[in-house]
Amino acid sequence: MRVNGRAQRTLHWDSEADAVSIIDQTLLPFEFERILLRRCEDACRAISHMQVRGAPLIGITAAYGLALAAREDAGDAAIQAASARLLATRPTAVNLRWALEQMRDCLLPLAPAQRFTAALDKAGALADADARCCESIGEQGLPLLQELWRQRRAQGAERLNILTHCNAGWLATVDWGTALAPLYKAAAAGIPIHVWVDETRPRNQGASLSAWELAQQGIAHTVIADNTGGHLMQAGRVDACLVGSDRTAANGDVCNKIGTYLKALAAQANGIPFYVALPLSTIDWTLSEGVGQIEIEERDGNELSRVRGRADDGALLELELFDADRSPALNVAFDVTPASCVSALITELGVADFGAGAGAAMARLRQECGA
Amino acid sequence: MRVNGRAQRTLHWDSEADAVSIIDQTLLPFEFERILLRRCEDACRAISHMQVRGAPLIGITAAYGLALAAREDAGDAAIQAASARLLATRPTAVNLRWALEQMRDCLLPLAPAQRFTAALDKAGALADADARCCESIGEQGLPLLQELWRQRRAQGAERLNILTHCNAGWLATVDWGTALAPLYKAAAAGIPIHVWVDETRPRNQGASLSAWELAQQGIAHTVIADNTGGHLMQAGRVDACLVGSDRTAANGDVCNKIGTYLKALAAQANGIPFYVALPLSTIDWTLSEGVGQIEIEERDGNELSRVRGRADDGALLELELFDADRSPALNVAFDVTPASCVSALITELGVADFGAGAGAAMARLRQECGA
Repeated sequence: MRVNGRAQRTLHWDSEADAVSIIDQTLLPFEFERILLRRCEDACRAISHMQVRGAPLIGITAAYGLALAAREDAGDAAIQAASARLLATRPTAVNLRWALEQMRDCLLPLAPAQRFTAALDKAGALADADARCCESIGEQGLPLLQELWRQRRAQGAERLNILTHCNAGWLATVDWGTALAPLYKAAAAGIPIHVWVDETRPRNQGASLSAWELAQQGIAHTVIADNTGGHLMQAGRVDACLVGSDRTAANGDVCNKIGTYLKALAAQANGIPFYVALPLSTIDWTLSEGVGQIEIEERDGNELSRVRGRADDGALLELELFDADRSPALNVAFDVTPASCVSALITELGVADFGAGAGAAMARLRQECGA
Repeated sequence: MRVNGRAQRTLHWDSEADAVSIIDQTLLPFEFERILLRRCEDACRAISHMQVRGAPLIGITAAYGLALAAREDAGDAAIQAASARLLATRPTAVNLRWALEQMRDCLLPLAPAQRFTAALDKAGALADADARCCESIGEQGLPLLQELWRQRRAQGAERLNILTHCNAGWLATVDWGTALAPLYKAAAAGIPIHVWVDETRPRNQGASLSAWELAQQGIAHTVIADNTGGHLMQAGRVDACLVGSDRTAANGDVCNKIGTYLKALAAQANGIPFYVALPLSTIDWTLSEGVGQIEIEERDGNELSRVRGRADDGALLELELFDADRSPALNVAFDVTPASCVSALITELGVADFGAGAGAAMARLRQECGA
C-alpha cells in the first residue's frame, strides 16, 4: 500500500542498513516514521510496546526478530532463548507462536553458520505468504462488492457505503490487510467506495489507523463514534459491513474487537449484509462454538480512562478522562458475534456464504481447506 | 442529591447573594464548582456554553434568567427581548421554549414593579415541579427494580446490574434525574444496585457526569466503552437497561442519545428488559411515529476529533485525536429506538408496559394523562 504516494509494506528487510524496517504505529495518525530493528531486543520491544500490532504483523516481526537473534548468536541455546523472549511479548497471540515454530523448525536442523541467512530467507517467505494471502482475500471479496454496487447503482446510488470496525487493514498485516483488502481491490476496480470508520474505543484503532491508511490510499471515508452505526443502518446509509476476525469457531461464530457484535445485530435488524474477512488460519476448527466458549481478554481500565492525542503546540500527550480510582473501568477487548448474524466469511480460498445456514457453509469450507 | 455528602440541587436561588447558584458542569468530573448567575446575560452564557445542560435544567435556568432580566428592566419590551435572547441559546430545546412561555404568561399581565418577585416565585415553582416530577419517576420505577431484584436474588445474584447510556441523572434536571431516579430510589430501598455506565461518545456524558454523580451518591458502578454492552448482555451480566429520552413519539418510538438503539437491539436479542424513564412532557403526541420522522441533529465533527481531559500536571486541556481535515467526522447526536425494542416507559404517572404491544399501552397512557 502507499504512504505519501510511495508503495511500501508495513515491514521489510532493509539490506542497506542490514536491519528490519517497520512503521512506528504508536505515532500514527500524527507522525509517519519508519524505524530500524537491529537486534532481537529491538523486535521484542517493538511488539510489546505495540509499535507493531495486528496478529499477522506481530508474527512476521517475531520471525525477523529470531533472524536478528541468529546474527548475534546462532547456537541452539541462544535461538531457543530468543524464541522464548519473543513469545513472551504478547503471550496470547496465536500467529506469534506459529511464526516462531516455523522459524525454529527451519533453523535448528542447520549448521549454526548457515542459520542467519536461512532465517532471513524464511522470514521473507513468511512475509510474502502473508501479503499474498491478504491480496487473495481482497480478490475473493471483490465480486461481492461488485454485485452490491451493481444493485445500488441501479437504484441511483452515487457511492457504495461500507461500515468497518477497528483496524483490519494493511497496518495489521504485511500488506493489503484483511477486511480492507476487498475495499482496496474494489476502489482499484473503479467502484466509488466510501467507508464509515468506527472510532473503535477504547484504543481508537479506527480513527487512528483505519482512517489514516484509507486517507493514504485516497479512499473516501468518514469517522463516526461507535454509537452511530445503528442509526446509519436504520437510515439506509450503509450498504454492507465488513470486519476482520481474531478467531472464528468451527460453527462460524466470530470473535473480533469489542463492539462488532452490536453492529452485526444492527445489520441483521436492518437487512444489511455483514461480511467477515479473515485468513483461514484464523479459524479454530477445534472450537465447536464461539459464544461462551472463547475466553475474552480483559485489559487495563486505563485504556478507557486515559487518552492520547496531539496538543495545540504539536506535543503528543496523554490526558485523564475520568478518575478510575473513583469510577472503575472495565475494558473488555473482544466480543463474539453469533454465526446467525453473519452473512458470509471471505477467505483467501473463497467466500463461505451463510445464507443457507452457517453449518453447511462451514462444513464445505473445512473440506475445501482440508482442515 | 448529594455532593461531598451535602444535599443540594443543580440550581437554586441563593438569597444571600441575590443570585442563581448553578454547578459549572463543564468542569466535571475534574472539579466541582458552584457559580453565581447575577444577570440575564450570565444565564444565556451558562446555557450556550453548556455549564448547564439537559433539557429540564436548561428550561429552569432560562426561567431564572428571565427573572434576572426582570430585575434589570421589568418593562414589556425588555422582558420580550430577554426571552428571545434566552430562547436563542439552544434553539432546539423544547423545555426551554415551554419554560419561557410559562414565565411570560405569568409576568406580562402584572404591573412591572411586581414582576421580579413574581418571576422568582414562578421560577422556583417550576424548579420544585421538575424535582417532584423526577422523584415520582423514581417512585414509579422502583417496583420494576424490586421485582427484578426479587427474581435475581432468588437465582443467587449478589447485585442488580443495570446498564445506562448518556446522563439522564440529576445533573440533567433540578434533582433526582429521570433514568437514574429509579436507581436512587432502589438503592435507598436497600437493593444492591451496580450500574454499567456507557462512556457515551463523543461527548462522554456517561464517563464524565453519570459516573461522577453515582460516585457522589455512593452507588457502585463501572465505566465501559460504548462497544461493551452487547457482550455483557450476551454474558448474562446485565439485568436491565434504563435510559432517558429526549423525545418520544405517540407510538412509543424513543429518540435518545446516539447509541441507545444499539443497546436496545442487544437487550432484545438477549431477552433483557429495556426501560425508558421520561417525564410525560417528553412525549410528542402529534408525532405518529419516531423512526424516520424525527429530525436528527448533526453536531460539529470536532466533538469527535477533539477530546478534553486532565493532564498529569492537573491542567484541563484539549487534544486532537485525528486530523478532521484529512478524515472528516460525522457527529450524529441522537437515534431512534423503535417501540418494538422497548419493554416499558416509566413516567411520573406510572409505567406503560409494552409487553402486550406498544400501541395499546400508549393509547392508555394518553388517556390517563389527558393528552
